[in-house]
Amino acid sequence: MSPDPPELVVRLLTRDAFAPFGDVIETAGAHHYAINEGTTERFHDLCDVDVESEGGKTLVNIFRGQAWACPISIKMVERHPLGSQAFIPLTQRPFLVVVAENGGAEPGPLHAFLSTDGQGVNYRRNVWHHPLLSLEETSDFLVVDRGGAGQNLEEFSFNMPIAMIKSLPSMT
Amino acid sequence: MSPDPPELVVRLLTRDAFAPFGDVIETAGAHHYAINEGTTERFHDLCDVDVESEGGKTLVNIFRGQAWACPISIKMVERHPLGSQAFIPLTQRPFLVVVAENGGAEPGPLHAFLSTDGQGVNYRRNVWHHPLLSLEETSDFLVVDRGGAGQNLEEFSFNMPIAMIKSLPSMT
Repeated sequence: MSPDPPELVVRLLTRDAFAPFGDVIETAGAHHYAINEGTTERFHDLCDVDVESEGGKTLVNIFRGQAWACPISIKMVERHPLGSQAFIPLTQRPFLVVVAENGGAEPGPLHAFLSTDGQGVNYRRNVWHHPLLSLEETSDFLVVDRGGAGQNLEEFSFNMPIAMIKSLPSMT
Repeated sequence: MSPDPPELVVRLLTRDAFAPFGDVIETAGAHHYAINEGTTERFHDLCDVDVESEGGKTLVNIFRGQAWACPISIKMVERHPLGSQAFIPLTQRPFLVVVAENGGAEPGPLHAFLSTDGQGVNYRRNVWHHPLLSLEETSDFLVVDRGGAGQNLEEFSFNMPIAMIKSLPSMT
């Protein structure tokens, strides 16, 4: 029997920590201004939608993700060579964000973040990430990604589980 | 003292009724398929993001709208000549959608819809609509619209209130 893979420690999601991988979509700290005669506040241009390569266009979708629970074994990651992909939770439930550094042909070291308080993320083009990891209950996410011709999905399966998420950080 | 403007009756939002004005963004009735080894259901390409004219690009924003309450007087509408604009509620609270038919230079007859159960809408380019009408509490919406050069906002103020929303339909 194989030993458990090394633990992947989960940090709370922040713009600074996630900057190498993409954008955090949240109102806190975002540029904003009043519109509609002051009845609406616009938090403006919260992520870089990068979908135009090879004639791509923006798609708006809803992903309904089943809930995962610790311990979570990380066995694969994927990336989108032709476009960014944003996930914005349509609930206030937390979810997990697992990314890998760019390691050349193969994924590099992994990082895990816990999204809280409705934070969304936008994976930059070509950033390795784990598929959607909802928590607590099946949850819906608005997803903004690329449609159009071309091969926009690359998957990488590790030979054996590469890391394990054993617990989540406190949300306070 | 002017008499009250005519009542604008509010209907529940449906794809069919809203089709002349744009898309209803909802999972019900949408094309969907399993991804991520069956752990996620993708409800695919839920609206037509039309932002590319005159070198435009897709923006992802959050609008925080103050709550309105009946009676609501309709005094103006606006439209975006260069791009579509989608509103997806980040809560399950209902909101009001008020649009006008294309009447040439001026807005034509008004229609009002109540979004329930998290339904979003995407206003087609050049469709007259009232600015955001949140209900019950201040509410956040994800907004997908166009950024870039060019004049993308046209407002039309009626000489006097053109219609009044006096009540909402039952949500059941």
